[in-house]
Amino acid sequence: MLSERQETILNIVKEQSPITGQHIAAKLHVTRAALRSDLAILTMLGLIDARPKLGYFFTGNKEKDLLSRVITDIKVESCLSQPVVVGEHTSAYDAVIAMFTEDVGTVFVANDNILVGVVSRKDLLRTALGNNDLRSLPVRMVMTPASKLIYVEPEEQALVAAQRLMEYEVDCLPVVNVLNREQEDRKELHIVGRISKTNITRLFVECGLGRRS
Amino acid sequence: MLSERQETILNIVKEQSPITGQHIAAKLHVTRAALRSDLAILTMLGLIDARPKLGYFFTGNKEKDLLSRVITDIKVESCLSQPVVVGEHTSAYDAVIAMFTEDVGTVFVANDNILVGVVSRKDLLRTALGNNDLRSLPVRMVMTPASKLIYVEPEEQALVAAQRLMEYEVDCLPVVNVLNREQEDRKELHIVGRISKTNITRLFVECGLGRRS
Repeated sequence: MLSERQETILNIVKEQSPITGQHIAAKLHVTRAALRSDLAILTMLGLIDARPKLGYFFTGNKEKDLLSRVITDIKVESCLSQPVVVGEHTSAYDAVIAMFTEDVGTVFVANDNILVGVVSRKDLLRTALGNNDLRSLPVRMVMTPASKLIYVEPEEQALVAAQRLMEYEVDCLPVVNVLNREQEDRKELHIVGRISKTNITRLFVECGLGRRS
Repeated sequence: MLSERQETILNIVKEQSPITGQHIAAKLHVTRAALRSDLAILTMLGLIDARPKLGYFFTGNKEKDLLSRVITDIKVESCLSQPVVVGEHTSAYDAVIAMFTEDVGTVFVANDNILVGVVSRKDLLRTALGNNDLRSLPVRMVMTPASKLIYVEPEEQALVAAQRLMEYEVDCLPVVNVLNREQEDRKELHIVGRISKTNITRLFVECGLGRRS
């Protein structure tokens, strides 16, 4: 993106700031005037900054700042997937069937669209290994209950969702609207969707291909 | 990133290219000279292009290209994880144990570090559901064999790895060095690591926080 000369100037400023335009010109064996447009561009790009009487400073990598701005602007609601939901009286076996039918790694357990729990491939594999009869085992016995769940709200940043996925070492988060039932001292989590490492991987690809702005 | 006037000029060029510098100046009620540095910057940024006797053209969004460069510069080798490997004579049960012990979703099956196959949580859950005795079942019967595997090489882009994860709908790819055994008409895949949607999610977080350059 930068020309060879712009890269050279940038490296000079990185190593020797503050440095005057005249000194940069001397190093490159050109006139000060010949550098004017290159210095203007590097300044406008925010890569270097000029201070009166001192000269040019390196200000850091604006490319990175720009990328992080593009990423932090992405909201969960713009990249979530449809949830796969089973009722709370479903068997563990039927939860696995839903998982395979819909080809997801995580299934939500809900009562009238209010989140009751979450069950993952890992939960079900552990249960199956324990020689349990999945057909007679209610999914409630296997799931992580809503009270212990990590979730995300639709208007939060996708970056925050990605951080939670990493921090809590889960593959998928429920996206919910939270309704505070203060009189009853509890929260109701209304399921809106799901966001998984797959969604984040798709976002990474879109950002890498310049399809998010 | 751009000044207000640069944005205005860019919009004029977008809507009316080709347009001469004089016409742009007239629209903004300034002199041609007053626009020189703005036009130079927009040209150097690759946002507009000048053609003799015709004027300025809009050439697309270079800002986006800059952003995607941060991502396309990331190589697989800079973000891979250690592989979890079992021998080819391991039982499916022991593969699950390795999966839980190492807390990964995918285990590689290898012979002397040469990839023989890959087995995922999904493969093992499907097998467990089929009422198989995992202890007496060799992992080879459950795995995807190397001949059908999608992989990535360490010097490829992380973006390419992310695209393959999405396209082939897998959670994890083996990172391998490929050795062509031409005389035997086969490829040997030497395991170097693994790259999963978890690694890509971590990269997304790092880019979002400006920690990748």
